[in-house]
Amino acid sequence: MKFFENGDGVTEPRGFFASGVHCDVKGKKDGALDLGVIYSKKPCTGAGVFTTNDVKAAPVTYCIDLLKNPKSTFHAVVANSGNANACTGAQGDADTKKMASEVARHLKVHSKEILVFSTGRIGVPLPMSRITAGIRDATDDVLQEFDGAHAFQEAILTSDTCTKSCSAKIETPGGEITVGGVVKGAGMIEPNMATMLAFLTTDAGASPELLKTILKQAVDQSFNLMTIDGDMSTNDSVVLLANKGGGIKLDLEEPTVVRKFQEAVNAVCAALARKCVSDGEKVTKFVKVRIQGAPSDEDAEKVARCIANSLLVKSSWYGSDPNWGRLVDAAGYAKIGLIFDQLDLFYDDVPALINGEPIIGNKSQWQNIVKGKEFIITLDLKIKKGKAEIWTNDLSEEYVNFNKSE
Amino acid sequence: MKFFENGDGVTEPRGFFASGVHCDVKGKKDGALDLGVIYSKKPCTGAGVFTTNDVKAAPVTYCIDLLKNPKSTFHAVVANSGNANACTGAQGDADTKKMASEVARHLKVHSKEILVFSTGRIGVPLPMSRITAGIRDATDDVLQEFDGAHAFQEAILTSDTCTKSCSAKIETPGGEITVGGVVKGAGMIEPNMATMLAFLTTDAGASPELLKTILKQAVDQSFNLMTIDGDMSTNDSVVLLANKGGGIKLDLEEPTVVRKFQEAVNAVCAALARKCVSDGEKVTKFVKVRIQGAPSDEDAEKVARCIANSLLVKSSWYGSDPNWGRLVDAAGYAKIGLIFDQLDLFYDDVPALINGEPIIGNKSQWQNIVKGKEFIITLDLKIKKGKAEIWTNDLSEEYVNFNKSE
Repeated sequence: MKFFENGDGVTEPRGFFASGVHCDVKGKKDGALDLGVIYSKKPCTGAGVFTTNDVKAAPVTYCIDLLKNPKSTFHAVVANSGNANACTGAQGDADTKKMASEVARHLKVHSKEILVFSTGRIGVPLPMSRITAGIRDATDDVLQEFDGAHAFQEAILTSDTCTKSCSAKIETPGGEITVGGVVKGAGMIEPNMATMLAFLTTDAGASPELLKTILKQAVDQSFNLMTIDGDMSTNDSVVLLANKGGGIKLDLEEPTVVRKFQEAVNAVCAALARKCVSDGEKVTKFVKVRIQGAPSDEDAEKVARCIANSLLVKSSWYGSDPNWGRLVDAAGYAKIGLIFDQLDLFYDDVPALINGEPIIGNKSQWQNIVKGKEFIITLDLKIKKGKAEIWTNDLSEEYVNFNKSE
Repeated sequence: MKFFENGDGVTEPRGFFASGVHCDVKGKKDGALDLGVIYSKKPCTGAGVFTTNDVKAAPVTYCIDLLKNPKSTFHAVVANSGNANACTGAQGDADTKKMASEVARHLKVHSKEILVFSTGRIGVPLPMSRITAGIRDATDDVLQEFDGAHAFQEAILTSDTCTKSCSAKIETPGGEITVGGVVKGAGMIEPNMATMLAFLTTDAGASPELLKTILKQAVDQSFNLMTIDGDMSTNDSVVLLANKGGGIKLDLEEPTVVRKFQEAVNAVCAALARKCVSDGEKVTKFVKVRIQGAPSDEDAEKVARCIANSLLVKSSWYGSDPNWGRLVDAAGYAKIGLIFDQLDLFYDDVPALINGEPIIGNKSQWQNIVKGKEFIITLDLKIKKGKAEIWTNDLSEEYVNFNKSE
């Protein structure tokens, strides 16, 4: 597999075009790009993974319904930032349908072949006259095959500080397959309800069922590891479109190709998720929290989340202070029956606690590790075999001034 | 009932004395008071409610053990700030016992008649030579009956910005009974693991069983409402000591007196908890989140906590922005089966949503309410009868600059 950081992402696979335009969703006349389209002339099969929040935005329920039908095919994605079209009632549903039908009209396809996404403020109706004007411009650009991949990347951002894309290529007996992706997350200064939208494209062909299985596995090993506090926004969505633009159809009877393709999708999702975790206001570190030896995997995840969500733990990382005390305290309030005097704790491979006893001789080593930009915390509870991993970051200066030392 | 904000608190009931001294727990030589004693010459019965964190500090397990014995009586509490004596192994247990025995030696009582509390940094052994010097000074002060209530209040603070005390008096056929209290919380900028220590005293007499029942009820209606994210520190403790200094013993055969006493303890705990919620870095608002109509009380609490812990919701309150969208989104990720289009939402008594429809005509009213220093959010899920209440606050400027508008 060849992997490419950044770049055009979703338009790397053959036959995909993208665009991004300013249609002033927020009514601020700031010129920011805020609506985009991804288009494939060839029809695509599709799969999606969506928020499990009880409250789902209108476009989310719309896409879930479309993707339920195994016969659905798709020609385009339309996405706007600045307004989530969430908690907008019947009007919101009508507006989503209108977005789809406007895109379809310009692209001369069926409106059920368009997937719709929104992100931004909740509870405010979409400014539909401006949105439809934007759709006219954005579809025009993709029909003219403009090079709009970066404009699309920009159009979906909200509080993100940078665009986030990547792609991967694999060789198969039938030729090359490319997987591309783009994501918007949000500064980790707002861990709750930061909407995450990710779009993946490929020039392989695949049944919707196979795409769904592959996407689900990739999401479980990437975006779901970075979820903070189990919260999901009303709009979180990850979709994968496959247009068979390279002529190769994935087939379970060729498991080697499917496995390679899975690895490519995994790599793209992992890189995009990592970019989301690292794109926060003044985030300086990327941290993997690994728990092992828990009573169950579920218990391990609880402990990992308590650590990863502790403002005090994250603040201490920012201050390059290993502070295992705060970390163990956070682990303790997962209340899964942790026994302090049998805990082993490692910063990367360096033991900090063995059976609850600090290994003081290693202190300068832990401190150096926590000074780095990336490290792994491993906590072994030594109870049973349960394990989990969570990806997280440190906290911005604004949070930390007060907390970084005692 | 007569209620008194602030004041001497724990020394208001007859026969209690308190002190606070500087013994340089942190080794910073900053002169800050960091060790205190509450003393009653008459023996007290006692009751306590403690952290449920898997990791309990040495003094917590020590106090739990002492209070388990229904025959235990107590003469004093000793508490230090600056060091939590948590995750300190066998040395920590020995140091706790040493603190008790040193206090007992100076007060000429048995070491099992001393309760011990610590708060501060985790994982560092106590500086016992300085602690024992502090104990000598602090016990000296209470034996000489110095007026040290305020010094004690100060000695237990960590990141708190002010001392927090109150008292209540009730009239009974046998005479007056006083309940006094003091608490330390922490800036809500650190919602995780902010240790809360509360000490209550009364000049009534009561069996340990009755005290425990009364304290448990009061804590459930106060400190447990303000707990953030289910987290508790390694050291959280609330204790109530009863010395019968006024000569009146509470008796279940006089239910009117017991009820009045319960109300006094409730009032003291509620006021102290409220002071904790309001004492954060630049906290400007005190908010009660009430959920009703949930499938169960447990579900209602989940929803209340999701709202109360949402950084985006709290940030919007700080910006005096009602932002019901963020609030409903937060409620949705409790995932208890909430149905958006049957939600009723109120700011104080003013409806903002009825059956999920915004009552736009009331908008200026909600905005005025959220501009106030104190308001109540009521969310009715209209599913079943489950309800819950959580007390919380807005978020400091540092968190908010980035989030308060979109």
